[in-house]
Amino acid sequence: MKNFEFHNPTKIVFGADTVARLSTLVPHDARVLILYGGASAEKTGTLAEVRAALGQRSVQEFGGIEPNPSYETLMRAVAQVRSEKLDFLLAVGGGSVIDGTKFVAAAALHDGEAWDIAERGGANIAQALPFGAVLTLPATGSEMNSGGVVTKKATHDKLSFRSPLLYPQFSVLDPSKTFTLPAKQVANGLVDAFVHTTEQYLTYPVQARVQDRFAEGLLQTLVEIAPQAVASPDDYETRANLMWTATLALNGLIGAGVPQDWATHMIGHELTALYDIDHARTLALVLPALLDVQREQKRGKLLQYGERVWNITEGSDDERISAAIAHTRAFFESLGIPTRLSAYELGQEAVEAVLKQLAAHGMTALGEHRDIDLARSRLILEAAL
Amino acid sequence: MKNFEFHNPTKIVFGADTVARLSTLVPHDARVLILYGGASAEKTGTLAEVRAALGQRSVQEFGGIEPNPSYETLMRAVAQVRSEKLDFLLAVGGGSVIDGTKFVAAAALHDGEAWDIAERGGANIAQALPFGAVLTLPATGSEMNSGGVVTKKATHDKLSFRSPLLYPQFSVLDPSKTFTLPAKQVANGLVDAFVHTTEQYLTYPVQARVQDRFAEGLLQTLVEIAPQAVASPDDYETRANLMWTATLALNGLIGAGVPQDWATHMIGHELTALYDIDHARTLALVLPALLDVQREQKRGKLLQYGERVWNITEGSDDERISAAIAHTRAFFESLGIPTRLSAYELGQEAVEAVLKQLAAHGMTALGEHRDIDLARSRLILEAAL
Repeated sequence: MKNFEFHNPTKIVFGADTVARLSTLVPHDARVLILYGGASAEKTGTLAEVRAALGQRSVQEFGGIEPNPSYETLMRAVAQVRSEKLDFLLAVGGGSVIDGTKFVAAAALHDGEAWDIAERGGANIAQALPFGAVLTLPATGSEMNSGGVVTKKATHDKLSFRSPLLYPQFSVLDPSKTFTLPAKQVANGLVDAFVHTTEQYLTYPVQARVQDRFAEGLLQTLVEIAPQAVASPDDYETRANLMWTATLALNGLIGAGVPQDWATHMIGHELTALYDIDHARTLALVLPALLDVQREQKRGKLLQYGERVWNITEGSDDERISAAIAHTRAFFESLGIPTRLSAYELGQEAVEAVLKQLAAHGMTALGEHRDIDLARSRLILEAAL
Repeated sequence: MKNFEFHNPTKIVFGADTVARLSTLVPHDARVLILYGGASAEKTGTLAEVRAALGQRSVQEFGGIEPNPSYETLMRAVAQVRSEKLDFLLAVGGGSVIDGTKFVAAAALHDGEAWDIAERGGANIAQALPFGAVLTLPATGSEMNSGGVVTKKATHDKLSFRSPLLYPQFSVLDPSKTFTLPAKQVANGLVDAFVHTTEQYLTYPVQARVQDRFAEGLLQTLVEIAPQAVASPDDYETRANLMWTATLALNGLIGAGVPQDWATHMIGHELTALYDIDHARTLALVLPALLDVQREQKRGKLLQYGERVWNITEGSDDERISAAIAHTRAFFESLGIPTRLSAYELGQEAVEAVLKQLAAHGMTALGEHRDIDLARSRLILEAAL
């Protein structure tokens, strides 16, 4: 096990009918900005519940935060925060809204050009506004971690940032708020949580037995609940398991003391920025291909994954690894999520375009061994054609 | 899944050579009281390391906190804190020292009789001194939770207390600090962590899939590492897994959203208070007997436990449950820890004495169903004879 620090101060309030708890979670004298995405927050009644819970507090709103939140949009929220002297942010939505809120929280108090925050990965964040979240879409884990991703539309740059100042003070997780999600978003969430877990698990063994067991428990749960999660929108227990699993997949716990990969995410980000493919869908494109290209480096963990998550115990090592990768691919496809670039009518020209962006962003030594250079990224992308 | 809140703000600093990190973890202007137990903290060099890391800070020490820390001893520490105007506590030791430090942190700022804190279970704690811990004995999980247990020697009362104000600000977990532990204490720690887990897992199913998987992962890990943990004191990786597993067994995570039992602990506490049997050893006495007496109420989870932790898949339901309980008993015995009161030369008179104490402490409706009254506690104790 590697040395590690683990410190996650976010308070989770989980369960049915918990949105009303905002009445005590948000400071009574706060000047609040509610940030949200599209019209669904209003249509489903969640925004009305939030407003009611906030009672007599001074509250303003900022809607229209898009999937893969853009710097351009978020800076309009920053302007509102500054001009209206707002001092508490409340994200109501999924990972994009919470990521965006984190960026606003830091940018509102940042001296100088706010894009620097993204370019320096958050290392230059000296202070941030306090904020909380009401989660409506289980997927990214942003509700209980300190990172985010922001995209500059003008240049197609999609960059991540992180700071200990960017943990939500609280997050309200009411699984029934997911009942109205489109099936596609639920499927995306399942894949997103799955790949968050594999990024911290499918590397090389360091005798971190508990972290391995926890990661395997998350993957097993996702596999078990996936059909029901997509097919039965109002099955509370299934949605509760999806929501808590997605949170635990990226709250620092399973990644503490182990090597981490994240190459799938870095390559996937370029696909989103270039072709506007949903984040989770880019992960499904890259992961199976990456596991195949990196099968030697990941041999030990791929065998363990095959046995413990997919019950693969027959055949040679190589056969078992191939079967584990095939099961992974089939799992994504079973959710209606393609694992081949051809499904998006992308071919060799996309490989070249992604490689160019990876080079431009300095993504030339990815993965737990830092051995995924541009040549290897090419192999991965070509394996995903 | 039940509704829940989860909020654990303790910072964990884990790994080899991390004691030196105290130099930045403890506030620079703190007036520190180091609390510790017996002579081993000095002999092993840990205290010297701690003093060196604290540098030029104003530091005093309070040694002699005993296993099952006594109110009488702790109130002497409280007197020292008050008279010397100390403002930061640093526990160096295992669960008893950390529990004791928590009591001192609350009692030092408590108006009125400090024993009230124990009698009210901590509900009357209005403020507490900040404190941190250097863990030397993996077992109780006190290093990452907000509870403790204190014993009044004069009356043999052993009571637990808890408060959101009693999370350590940080805990330093260096597995190599456990190399010098007597084998008996390591065995106790394995059992303690095991039973902490079963108290939150072996109840009734509520479709909390992740919590179940995590609990099973902790139990599997304890079973896997136990022989090596006892036999090879300086096997760093094994001790690292023991330490992190014991912490995660009682930090609120696996208990969030599920029913909890704790009857084994309540009955066990009386055995410690009356006969001075090590805490973990009382748990090994009570748990197998309790699982047998409560086998109907716990049927679903006992079957799941048998299959997932012990690979028991053959036989009727009742046979599989009996096998799961037998495996549990054999596991404790394999560590040299008895599961029968007769091993301590205790018989029917002990049953009567424990029942009398349970009655005196109002422990007449224990367990996840509150159905363990004195008559059922009698059955459990008699099954442990």
